[in-house]
Amino acid sequence: MNNFTYSIPTKIHFGKDQISHLNELKESGDKVLLVYGGGSIKKSGIYDNAMEILKSADITVYELSGVEPNPKIESVRAGVSTCKENEIDMVLAIGGGSTIDCAKVVAAGACSEEDPWELVLHPDRIKKALPIYSVLTLAATGSEMDEFAVISDLSKNEKWGTASELLKPTMSIMDPQYTYTVSPKQTSAGTADIISHTFENYFTNVKGADVQARFAEGLLKNCFKYGPIALKEPDNYDARANLMWTSSMAINGLIKDGAEVAWCVHPMEHELSAFYDITHGEGLAILTPVWMDFALSDKTAGKFAEYGRNVWNIVGEDDMVVAKEAIAKTREFFAQMNLPKTLAEVGINEEYFDKMAEKAANGCAGSFVELTKEDIIEIYKAAL
Amino acid sequence: MNNFTYSIPTKIHFGKDQISHLNELKESGDKVLLVYGGGSIKKSGIYDNAMEILKSADITVYELSGVEPNPKIESVRAGVSTCKENEIDMVLAIGGGSTIDCAKVVAAGACSEEDPWELVLHPDRIKKALPIYSVLTLAATGSEMDEFAVISDLSKNEKWGTASELLKPTMSIMDPQYTYTVSPKQTSAGTADIISHTFENYFTNVKGADVQARFAEGLLKNCFKYGPIALKEPDNYDARANLMWTSSMAINGLIKDGAEVAWCVHPMEHELSAFYDITHGEGLAILTPVWMDFALSDKTAGKFAEYGRNVWNIVGEDDMVVAKEAIAKTREFFAQMNLPKTLAEVGINEEYFDKMAEKAANGCAGSFVELTKEDIIEIYKAAL
Repeated sequence: MNNFTYSIPTKIHFGKDQISHLNELKESGDKVLLVYGGGSIKKSGIYDNAMEILKSADITVYELSGVEPNPKIESVRAGVSTCKENEIDMVLAIGGGSTIDCAKVVAAGACSEEDPWELVLHPDRIKKALPIYSVLTLAATGSEMDEFAVISDLSKNEKWGTASELLKPTMSIMDPQYTYTVSPKQTSAGTADIISHTFENYFTNVKGADVQARFAEGLLKNCFKYGPIALKEPDNYDARANLMWTSSMAINGLIKDGAEVAWCVHPMEHELSAFYDITHGEGLAILTPVWMDFALSDKTAGKFAEYGRNVWNIVGEDDMVVAKEAIAKTREFFAQMNLPKTLAEVGINEEYFDKMAEKAANGCAGSFVELTKEDIIEIYKAAL
Repeated sequence: MNNFTYSIPTKIHFGKDQISHLNELKESGDKVLLVYGGGSIKKSGIYDNAMEILKSADITVYELSGVEPNPKIESVRAGVSTCKENEIDMVLAIGGGSTIDCAKVVAAGACSEEDPWELVLHPDRIKKALPIYSVLTLAATGSEMDEFAVISDLSKNEKWGTASELLKPTMSIMDPQYTYTVSPKQTSAGTADIISHTFENYFTNVKGADVQARFAEGLLKNCFKYGPIALKEPDNYDARANLMWTSSMAINGLIKDGAEVAWCVHPMEHELSAFYDITHGEGLAILTPVWMDFALSDKTAGKFAEYGRNVWNIVGEDDMVVAKEAIAKTREFFAQMNLPKTLAEVGINEEYFDKMAEKAANGCAGSFVELTKEDIIEIYKAAL
């Protein structure tokens, strides 16, 4: 196990009707920037509910709406301007990971003289941030409890993640009922995202990090059990609750700390989203089994077999056989969730493979199995 | 899954030579009360090391030494007096759970006009506490990352736990190397304590709390794997590290939140320690399998079988058969760790069963299987 510093300071109010805790924002001031996406939170009533609670707490609300699924730097800049012009005390994101990510960089940008894109490219330039709050409406990115934010500049085909202790939310509200109306497509993509976060941490070369590995296996079991239930019964509370809490645990540091490894499927997927604006979780579902095929070797079979035995209860002595069955199970699961199997299905062809692979290769450096630019092109091709 | 509020604000510096982070105490002031037990931290060099770092950070150190294995209220009172007389800014415990528990109640008592025993009996009277820091030297209670403290008044045969958000440490340093010198007896007792914390949370009637259950199973696997290794190879880093990190995770709220249930083996054991001052973990190891035998019924067999299948990989269709094998495995494990099997072995006879059971029954109310005073006497008798 590696040395590590564990710090998950975000307070979470989890469960039914926890939105009443929005009055706690008062602890950070009396002017909030409310960040949200399309109109879904108005249709669902969450918007009205939140406004009422904030009003009762004498908090003045400014708004940044229309945040995109892959949040754009232009939205961040608009939010930063509003914060600076009105001396806003805190940001409140209501939505999924994209909305929260946007709000996070707004919170940092509001305390900086630099253009926020610089804070995306250079996380170390984040020196201060407004307090960040969130109400989560989609189980996927884990942004409600972590230090990450991913922002795109589509004019440059760029999508980058930034990270800072200062971007960890002060408090998040997680009401699984809010995810009842998440579409089947987004439910599947969100589940794929959670699974990928877990895999990215789980497939590590660090030895002896058993707390982390056993936790990761538990999270994977939850996804495989509850993903299909959530698809079939969108208002199954326990399915939505377990997916939601799993999404936070997959990326809040708990399964990473002490078992550190560079991610690789995410960097490869970020290029797909940056060039084609596809749904992140769908890109992950396409690439993950292909990456597994590529990464499997005599050297790594033991780890894949551990995954197969502990998560899928596959019985067998031969690591390679168990490993292959585990990868097949993973592939079947994504198919069962109606996730796309090939890049062609989401409209991607070979055109930018070279460019995308070159950029992805940097992000992948230090991952479980080292990937060169050529390896990544091979993976992209196998995913066609 | 139940509604819950998750809050684990303690920062942890985990790993080799993390004691250098003691300079962070400066953030809380410049006068610290150092709380420790016997001379073992002097023998091991941790004391000198800590003093040097604190001195370099210009922090003045006051001391409370000689804290007992079951920390006494008299020690707490002495610490409170020192804090009040010298306007101390924070407390720093170096030791195991007993030392940290003592320091926690000192921290609360220093901010209160009441006698600290009142704060033990009435947790809601804890309104403020000095910042609490710890350097852990024993993997067991999880006190380094939780809100609990257990204090004894042996003059009254009383041992009670108190709890408060304010008792959660600000920062704890966990260096597994410090546990290399923990005796076989304490290694075994500590492992039993971790296992019991996990069981107390795991055996719940709350349905659908899968994140919590899968995490608990992972923690149990770690104890069963690494307990015997730590006994055989006291300086096996991965064994000590996994036991140490597991000890924190078993009780910091992670596996409890959303799956709440009253504990029962701990309240029964606390009476044994209060009346006989025995080692807490040994009492737990004696009582746990006996409690399992008692709690097993057609109604609970499913849960015990889940434990058997997911932790011990027991294969079988019949819940009752799997459950019984799982209980047998648990009993065997404690025996393998050279833990006592009967109350007689630790010098306890029937004399106080009636008195102890009466007190324990209150603490057990609302547990996985409800226990009357008579039930508890039956369990004590079966443990003779």
